[in-house]
Amino acid sequence: MSSGPGAAVLLSPVTGPPRPVDPREPMVRLEDQALTRGDGIFETLHVLDGTAYKFDAHHARLAASARTADLPAPPQDVCRAALALGLDAAGPGSHDPSRDLGAEHSVKLSVSRGVPGGEPWAWLTVSPVPPQTFEARQDGVSVLLLERGHDPAEDSGMPWLLPGVKTLSYAVNMAAVRHARANGAQDVVFTTSTDRRILEGATSSVVCARTSPGQPPTLVTPEPSRGILPGTSQARIFDAARRHGWGVDYGPLHPRDLLEADAVWLTSSVRLAVPVTRVDGHPVCSDPALTRTLTDFLLGRAGS
Amino acid sequence: MSSGPGAAVLLSPVTGPPRPVDPREPMVRLEDQALTRGDGIFETLHVLDGTAYKFDAHHARLAASARTADLPAPPQDVCRAALALGLDAAGPGSHDPSRDLGAEHSVKLSVSRGVPGGEPWAWLTVSPVPPQTFEARQDGVSVLLLERGHDPAEDSGMPWLLPGVKTLSYAVNMAAVRHARANGAQDVVFTTSTDRRILEGATSSVVCARTSPGQPPTLVTPEPSRGILPGTSQARIFDAARRHGWGVDYGPLHPRDLLEADAVWLTSSVRLAVPVTRVDGHPVCSDPALTRTLTDFLLGRAGS
Repeated sequence: MSSGPGAAVLLSPVTGPPRPVDPREPMVRLEDQALTRGDGIFETLHVLDGTAYKFDAHHARLAASARTADLPAPPQDVCRAALALGLDAAGPGSHDPSRDLGAEHSVKLSVSRGVPGGEPWAWLTVSPVPPQTFEARQDGVSVLLLERGHDPAEDSGMPWLLPGVKTLSYAVNMAAVRHARANGAQDVVFTTSTDRRILEGATSSVVCARTSPGQPPTLVTPEPSRGILPGTSQARIFDAARRHGWGVDYGPLHPRDLLEADAVWLTSSVRLAVPVTRVDGHPVCSDPALTRTLTDFLLGRAGS
Repeated sequence: MSSGPGAAVLLSPVTGPPRPVDPREPMVRLEDQALTRGDGIFETLHVLDGTAYKFDAHHARLAASARTADLPAPPQDVCRAALALGLDAAGPGSHDPSRDLGAEHSVKLSVSRGVPGGEPWAWLTVSPVPPQTFEARQDGVSVLLLERGHDPAEDSGMPWLLPGVKTLSYAVNMAAVRHARANGAQDVVFTTSTDRRILEGATSSVVCARTSPGQPPTLVTPEPSRGILPGTSQARIFDAARRHGWGVDYGPLHPRDLLEADAVWLTSSVRLAVPVTRVDGHPVCSDPALTRTLTDFLLGRAGS
C-alpha cells in the first residue's frame, strides 16, 4: 500500500495555530472519539505543483458536514496555513508517468470530536499520490455493482442520519471495496436495492457520457438530491462542460445506462476521472480523448 | 463527560503479548484506519468486582464481527490476559449508589485495521462506570423514536454492508443520541421508515414486558434476524427468563407496543437494564421490581 504521509499538521484547537508534527509519531489518544466511534468528518484534496484544487468547494463541503454533525470546521485561513506548512514539510510529490501533470500530492483534512469532555481538533496529512492512482487513471478500473441496502434518498429529511456528511465512519465503504477486490474487480458502484438505481462509488461519483458524431457530448450523473454525497469533482466537470456547450444531465441512471454509455468514469479529487472498463464483468466503452478533456476540466486547463 | 479511562492495554500485534500503556499518552498514528475510516470493530464489557460478565458471548461476537470485516480477533486467552493487566492498572471502580452491586468497571476492547500496509492491532481500555450510568439505571431514560431510514433486514445477504458487525463507524449512532438530547430526550430507539417497526437503541437492545396478575411475565424483543445487532444482554436476560418459566417472544414490535407494555428497557452490557420512562414524550409504565430481576438475571444473581 502507501508508504504513509510525507507530512502532518495538527490543528488543536481547530482554530489553530497549525503545528507541523511527525506523521510517524503517535498523536492520538486511545479514547479519541474519531478512533472509538468514527466520529468526525473529512475532505481529500488534490494538490498539483503546490496548488490545492477546488479548495473553496472542499472547505464549503467540510463546513456543511460540520454543521450537520455539530462539529466546528477550521476556518479557511487556518486550513490554508496548515496546507502551506504541510506542503513545506512534505516530499516533492509524485509524477503521473502516462501524462505528467506536475508534482502531485494528496491532502486529507479531518476533524475529530476529540476525547469525551475534551475539545474537537483537526489534522491534515500530505502524501505523494500513490502509483495505484496513476495506474487507475491510465488503465481504468473494473467495478462491481453492489446494493447499498437502502435508498439514501430516504435519509434526506433525517439529520440524525448525517445525510450528505462526509464522516469518518467509512467502514462499509472500505468493506465494499474489499468485497469487489475479492471478486476480481477493483472498485464499487453502489445501487439502490429496490430499483437498482446507480448511486455513487465507494469514494467517488459516477459520470457517464453519451456522444454522437458532430455533436458535443452529454454528461450524465445520478440526481444530486437523492442522498448521494455531492461530488466536488463531478460539479467542477459539469461546470466546465456547460461552459463548453456540452449537455449535462442528471439521472436516474440504471445499470444498462452504464453498459450503453460511450464512456463511464469514477470521479474524485485525487484520482480525477478514472475510466470504468467493466461493470460486473461486462465491457464498457472507453474514450481516452474524453478522459483527457475531463481531466483538463478538473485542472482548469481546457481552453474555452 | 467521563474523566477518561483508568487504564489501557495495547495488543500489537493482536496476538499479543498485551502491554499496559498510559491512556493519557497518544498511542495512535494519524493515518491509522480506525481513525481515518472508522475501520475496526469493538465490544464493551461490564466488570463487577474484577469479573467480566458474558466474556464468552462478547468474544464470540467480536470473532464474528472480525470474520465479516476481514480482521483478526485477539484470541480468548490474550483478551483475558489483557483484561487482567488492565484491571490491575485501573482504579478501584465505582459503586452504584442506589443499589451497590460491587465495584464496577466498563471495558472496551477494539481492533483496528492499522496503518495502510501495516498490521491490525487491538487495544483495551478500563474505566470506572460513570455516574450517568447509575442515574439512568435508577431514573430511567426518555427516548425519541427516530427512523433509521432503511430496513436493516435488507442488509442481511450483503456482507459488504457489514450486517451484524459492531464496527467503529458509529457516527450515526452518536448523531442520533445528540439529536435526542437536543430535543429533550436522553436516548434513541430506531425504527424502520416503512412500517415504523422497532429496531434497537443507539447502543442498546429494546426489551419490553407484558404482565398479568398471577402469571409469569412475558418478555418481548424485536426479531433478532432482522439485521439488528444481536444483543448479548438481551440474550442473557432471555436465557434466564426461560429458565424461570417466563414467556419470551420476538417481535415485530411497533411504537404502540412500547406504550402499552407494562415495562420497557434499553439493555446493554454496562448500563444493564435501563427503564424507558417516555417514548416521544408519552409516559411508559415502569416496574422497579422487574428491573431489579432483569438486573439479577444479567448478573447471574437470580435464584431459580
